[in-house]
Amino acid sequence: MQFIKSIEQQMIQWRRQFHKNPELGFMEYRTTAYIYRHLKKLQFKTFIGQEVMSDSARYGLPAKATLRHYEKTVLKQGEIESAIFCEIKDGFTGVIGQIKSKHSGPHSAFRFDIDALPITETTEKSHHPYKNNYTSTNKGVMHACGHDGHIAIGLALATYISKRINQLTGTFTLIFQPAEEGGRGAHAIVENGWLDGVDYFYSGHIGLNDLDVGTVALAANGFLASTKIDVLFKGEASHAGISPEKGKNSLLAAANAVMNLYAISRHSEGISRINVGKMIGGTGRNVIAPSSKLEIETRGETERINRYLTERALAILEGSAKMYDVSLKKEVVGQTNVVNCHPELIEKLFNHIQTDDYIKNVLKITDVSGSEDVSFMMNRVHNHGGKATYMIFGANIKHGHHHPSFDFNERVLTIALDVYIQALGIFNKRR
Amino acid sequence: MQFIKSIEQQMIQWRRQFHKNPELGFMEYRTTAYIYRHLKKLQFKTFIGQEVMSDSARYGLPAKATLRHYEKTVLKQGEIESAIFCEIKDGFTGVIGQIKSKHSGPHSAFRFDIDALPITETTEKSHHPYKNNYTSTNKGVMHACGHDGHIAIGLALATYISKRINQLTGTFTLIFQPAEEGGRGAHAIVENGWLDGVDYFYSGHIGLNDLDVGTVALAANGFLASTKIDVLFKGEASHAGISPEKGKNSLLAAANAVMNLYAISRHSEGISRINVGKMIGGTGRNVIAPSSKLEIETRGETERINRYLTERALAILEGSAKMYDVSLKKEVVGQTNVVNCHPELIEKLFNHIQTDDYIKNVLKITDVSGSEDVSFMMNRVHNHGGKATYMIFGANIKHGHHHPSFDFNERVLTIALDVYIQALGIFNKRR
Amino acid sequence: MQFIKSIEQQMIQWRRQFHKNPELGFMEYRTTAYIYRHLKKLQFKTFIGQEVMSDSARYGLPAKATLRHYEKTVLKQGEIESAIFCEIKDGFTGVIGQIKSKHSGPHSAFRFDIDALPITETTEKSHHPYKNNYTSTNKGVMHACGHDGHIAIGLALATYISKRINQLTGTFTLIFQPAEEGGRGAHAIVENGWLDGVDYFYSGHIGLNDLDVGTVALAANGFLASTKIDVLFKGEASHAGISPEKGKNSLLAAANAVMNLYAISRHSEGISRINVGKMIGGTGRNVIAPSSKLEIETRGETERINRYLTERALAILEGSAKMYDVSLKKEVVGQTNVVNCHPELIEKLFNHIQTDDYIKNVLKITDVSGSEDVSFMMNRVHNHGGKATYMIFGANIKHGHHHPSFDFNERVLTIALDVYIQALGIFNKRR
Amino acid sequence: MQFIKSIEQQMIQWRRQFHKNPELGFMEYRTTAYIYRHLKKLQFKTFIGQEVMSDSARYGLPAKATLRHYEKTVLKQGEIESAIFCEIKDGFTGVIGQIKSKHSGPHSAFRFDIDALPITETTEKSHHPYKNNYTSTNKGVMHACGHDGHIAIGLALATYISKRINQLTGTFTLIFQPAEEGGRGAHAIVENGWLDGVDYFYSGHIGLNDLDVGTVALAANGFLASTKIDVLFKGEASHAGISPEKGKNSLLAAANAVMNLYAISRHSEGISRINVGKMIGGTGRNVIAPSSKLEIETRGETERINRYLTERALAILEGSAKMYDVSLKKEVVGQTNVVNCHPELIEKLFNHIQTDDYIKNVLKITDVSGSEDVSFMMNRVHNHGGKATYMIFGANIKHGHHHPSFDFNERVLTIALDVYIQALGIFNKRR
Repeated sequence: MQFIKSIEQQMIQWRRQFHKNPELGFMEYRTTAYIYRHLKKLQFKTFIGQEVMSDSARYGLPAKATLRHYEKTVLKQGEIESAIFCEIKDGFTGVIGQIKSKHSGPHSAFRFDIDALPITETTEKSHHPYKNNYTSTNKGVMHACGHDGHIAIGLALATYISKRINQLTGTFTLIFQPAEEGGRGAHAIVENGWLDGVDYFYSGHIGLNDLDVGTVALAANGFLASTKIDVLFKGEASHAGISPEKGKNSLLAAANAVMNLYAISRHSEGISRINVGKMIGGTGRNVIAPSSKLEIETRGETERINRYLTERALAILEGSAKMYDVSLKKEVVGQTNVVNCHPELIEKLFNHIQTDDYIKNVLKITDVSGSEDVSFMMNRVHNHGGKATYMIFGANIKHGHHHPSFDFNERVLTIALDVYIQALGIFNKRR
Repeated sequence: MQFIKSIEQQMIQWRRQFHKNPELGFMEYRTTAYIYRHLKKLQFKTFIGQEVMSDSARYGLPAKATLRHYEKTVLKQGEIESAIFCEIKDGFTGVIGQIKSKHSGPHSAFRFDIDALPITETTEKSHHPYKNNYTSTNKGVMHACGHDGHIAIGLALATYISKRINQLTGTFTLIFQPAEEGGRGAHAIVENGWLDGVDYFYSGHIGLNDLDVGTVALAANGFLASTKIDVLFKGEASHAGISPEKGKNSLLAAANAVMNLYAISRHSEGISRINVGKMIGGTGRNVIAPSSKLEIETRGETERINRYLTERALAILEGSAKMYDVSLKKEVVGQTNVVNCHPELIEKLFNHIQTDDYIKNVLKITDVSGSEDVSFMMNRVHNHGGKATYMIFGANIKHGHHHPSFDFNERVLTIALDVYIQALGIFNKRR
Repeated sequence: MQFIKSIEQQMIQWRRQFHKNPELGFMEYRTTAYIYRHLKKLQFKTFIGQEVMSDSARYGLPAKATLRHYEKTVLKQGEIESAIFCEIKDGFTGVIGQIKSKHSGPHSAFRFDIDALPITETTEKSHHPYKNNYTSTNKGVMHACGHDGHIAIGLALATYISKRINQLTGTFTLIFQPAEEGGRGAHAIVENGWLDGVDYFYSGHIGLNDLDVGTVALAANGFLASTKIDVLFKGEASHAGISPEKGKNSLLAAANAVMNLYAISRHSEGISRINVGKMIGGTGRNVIAPSSKLEIETRGETERINRYLTERALAILEGSAKMYDVSLKKEVVGQTNVVNCHPELIEKLFNHIQTDDYIKNVLKITDVSGSEDVSFMMNRVHNHGGKATYMIFGANIKHGHHHPSFDFNERVLTIALDVYIQALGIFNKRR
Repeated sequence: MQFIKSIEQQMIQWRRQFHKNPELGFMEYRTTAYIYRHLKKLQFKTFIGQEVMSDSARYGLPAKATLRHYEKTVLKQGEIESAIFCEIKDGFTGVIGQIKSKHSGPHSAFRFDIDALPITETTEKSHHPYKNNYTSTNKGVMHACGHDGHIAIGLALATYISKRINQLTGTFTLIFQPAEEGGRGAHAIVENGWLDGVDYFYSGHIGLNDLDVGTVALAANGFLASTKIDVLFKGEASHAGISPEKGKNSLLAAANAVMNLYAISRHSEGISRINVGKMIGGTGRNVIAPSSKLEIETRGETERINRYLTERALAILEGSAKMYDVSLKKEVVGQTNVVNCHPELIEKLFNHIQTDDYIKNVLKITDVSGSEDVSFMMNRVHNHGGKATYMIFGANIKHGHHHPSFDFNERVLTIALDVYIQALGIFNKRR
């Protein structure tokens, strides 16, 4: 508690700094460098680049040109040391810090996601970041999902562990994961073996449902299995006035696919979701559009429902391509599974975590409905005999996640830190 | 004929130079500067910037940011004198050159369009510009409609007039018009009065139908009335997994509009066309798309048919917005009318224009079906008692206009020049 | 048990007789007459025609011509006495039987639905009714939802109550309700006051989920609120070859509405459903379709979700009409609410109902997801201080309800009867 | 002229009698019988039943049940002799009458179409048939295309030929063709060889464009090639509330096909048309629709354009079936070709046909845009060296063909007769 109090202002400052400098998934270069330096200073053994992630297991890497363009901007700002930059360029962002107590004990891992979203932040006067002058300076990019807060919590927890390492037992792994949005980064970290042998795994999210600040749910139910698909229809251009029939209209094929994708039937066995979040089609007004792209995602309460959706989506995409005699390319660029928090771990946490100046109310479990690639990590932990959970930290969210006006009550930062520190007290405390 | 022979190589070189350096409508900065300098040198009185075009009468000006971005690139290349650049920046491209003989006579005007298209040129080996090393160096932009040739013809004609001014009578106006594609530039030139008082007006196009090289049609039938509309649907973002029903899906509204726009009925009174050449919707895969844009055009054999299409399109756009509870903004960004060539002028030309080493075959009239904002100019000339025509110069086009492999036989350049020079011989020759 | 055994064969015979003679909602003329005669014979006070249902409160009455046509067929068969027929014609089907013990006691009501579906029964050899020669003789109509069994259970229960009236206490109302399918008949019975003052209300359904024969659930969770809407788009005919643009295409408006109705977003608060079960549009191939009809239904886990769906549906219908400049007529023809079984009644039943030769397994509650207009009755009972429940009788259904091969294990008939008799033993037994 | 005057009142009476008793294609039983008796009386050699049409070459025969149902109605009315009825039942309607002069001469054939449309006639007071009490007595069926008038002209012409047979030369074939609507009957008559060896062939239509009464066009330009297709999507039923995902939604497949069919591109080579005139889908509101039907037609100014349309339509139908995992059955049920009138015949007619009390104005040719299966007959005549034309008889049509208020000025009857009689005077008159 003393520690928490002492670091509170620092946490808020961190959060605002990251909020002001948001970076998209696999391009969190400055974010990664900052975290890396901090962990280093705290005596963590630090890992970056291909040590963190398996190259080929990353889903949905941005196009080369996009990476290059942002890397240039970053280099121009000149804040990152070459030693770091050379490791993390080409989308190898994220840091893992590890530290061992000299006293043996279990291996506990924590995961914090660090990426932002392609959303333009509001400039409404009532928006807290606007009033307090820390809105995004990276145009069109925004921390609209609370990951800025997650990083701040992770840095504070690292500080705590480092300072108290002698009173703790066992091993601590802090994973700062890139590209959570779209379910793209976790899988590649898991593939590098970072979760193998972890005894206790914790991650969590600020908000996600309407819990009050001070309320903490020790586990989340209802994360959905999800698949992210990129689609390209390729047809043929033709002058729309002179010879429209000679074109093969990719834009019509895509628009038609959109209509029918949303019309995929509900499933009687549980929640299903389908979204086409982006469509870019055509080259010019008077040209039959030669190529069009869609970004699609499906979600299901079970993997079976999600599979139903992806199979139906596939048939629709193929049918639409057939209709317009255009070719179809599709690529799975992200994937998440259903998450199951470990009941024994939840029980243990529930028996030990206490309310105090920060935590006002502890729930065993709460319902959410998003998708999280932390699922890959948790499932790997469980498969190796460990126990994992994913918590929700109430934060009185007013505008939903991914909204241009998204914001949270900053008190949640200390509350989450408190929960994690108390959790350490159960399994990793020297007695 | 002597003159034509002497300038043939120069014309080909001009054409290839412009082909290599294509620029989009209202951003033909380097093109404009080059033409300006050439006319100046030939003793033409030259006009640029707001002298050429009325600011507010320009349709479909590119976004400020797009203009700014290209202007920066151009400035960096450092080829344009500030005196010119300051006049033409902000999309005031195009040049008008005027020269008077000391012998009185009629006022003849010629119009050449100078803009390129947002098309990526092919790199097939059989493509003539590729083989001969003059493909576009401005990525994603291409002279795929022959305007590079039109400029070359214009420059050669200017040279002819300048050199023979003493043997000619009357006044000559050469209009190098920006932004013909999309029907955007002509209207603003007309509004500045440049066509008022013109006695004879000539323009023309390389190719447009399958006439052979050597064949010239003295008039074109069948240009369509056309309207270009930009559409913006604005909805509301929401997380596609957590609260899809809270979003207002602009992308669905737009895709649905697309489907129904193409379904607008054919018209029993003649040719109709509808195209959605571009759609850009949404921000990210897992967000209900908050805004989506469409670029639409309609065409009709008569203004009545075109009006029918735009009225139906409007109802569809409004209906789709209503369906998805999203707002709708629409803007007319281009317009062309039906073109009528003057029968007396055609008759005169037909009686006088001779076949020779260049021209092999003269047709009175041919059928095309595109849209041209030269219509604004021709209608203005007719309204003031002048006579206008629009010619087609056969060019053995293999790949249609606006195709990435578009090319034409360069012999057409001298043929077109020959026709224009012979036309001068009818009305503006000192006898 | 003795009684149940004695009536088992009769129940099977009844069930098969009704299966062979299925009748659509509000046209159950022969069914009604049969039940009426049976109740009469058992000394029930019987009610038919407008005593049963309020004229104006019936939803979704078939068209006059449809009623007339079937009434003629029925009359030709000559099986119904004029006295009955005159009361029930014009869609006033259904019977209510009431009987009072001389011993005072509570008022218990039971509801049995009696209508069939517009489905053509299978002629697969493995189909039980086919093998045993009792498939539908009313072409295109089928008891594919088990209501034939419900009637058999009702008639058997009536026989029991009548024979044991002296050992029972209180009042008994048996409601044989027409037009359950589509949520059309219950509301009009409720409006006539039949549920006011009922102390205990029971209804139930054969099957509905995959419970085994012998298993009984004393309450059902998860019936959905539902709204049924009939839609008529009216446009204008025109010759599709000669003047297509003069038509106003109702078929396009309807097809477009279909596409967009299915695309209504899922709802984060629970189950939602949308269906367009029927579309009839146009008059002839070469005519722009002057009018088109849709039959739509929405369902929601809560009334709020259902309202969301109907509001979205409305906007879509209006938007589509606007798009095609056609008029829109819509009519709510059916409605069901969310059903809540009374927890005290469930508890009481659970404590008293015993397994025996028929009942093998008793569950308190089970999950289903359909919609039932029994909801109107149950809500009315609760509003007047009574207690209501809706049970599910396991029946090993292989093909889902409303499937052409639907069938159930006939043992369920005696099991359901057993449950109802045991329920009487709790509240209405003389001790 | 004397003859024309004498038969005028009779023609009007015939026309009104047929207008009052319209019959659909391939079910013109009473119409056929009447014509047959009349021709018989006039000494024509008459042919009916399979002599007229090849069984298998008939397109789009109504369903057996439909034929049966109407045949019963007709039999009940008891107006048709068994001898006739037995030949023409099963959709073998139509009559051919043949008569030979004893003087040798060319073979002239005339064709009159006799079927009505599935349109409900208006009951507006201003409607001429309504005011004069001869509206349709066959509910839902109407002579809304003038074929009632065509029959009257044919009967009058038969009378003329019969009476004047001694003053004429050669052979005369009068074809009263069933099922012209939908392009269904002509092909089967051609297949039986009736047009082989015909020297001069005439047919025509009342109205079709806005010519005045008194004006006659000796040939029609612009009949479109056309294909009529019936489509059946077969999916699988399922309860829309309980297990929507188990259904295969034929109605969505059909609605989606409709949207995309109308979106088939215009064709740069000429007129194209596409229409879905009818859609019937689904069984009940709460069932995923197991089967859905469409009635489609395409038309093109050239056979190439029409083929483009049918090929695109096919791809769309197959794509939509694929999308929804439903099966697709499609059948071509009608076909017409482009019609070319013979220029020499037109020239001859134009030189000889005189204006008089009836004919006020003679045009060589006029433009129309419908489709006519007379095209099969004319093409066959031309292929065998004969000469054919198709005329338009101006009739001041106010409401378009196929409109519920369609009507024509009855003066056109004598005018058309006059034209045909004058035509006989050119080639078949004894001199």
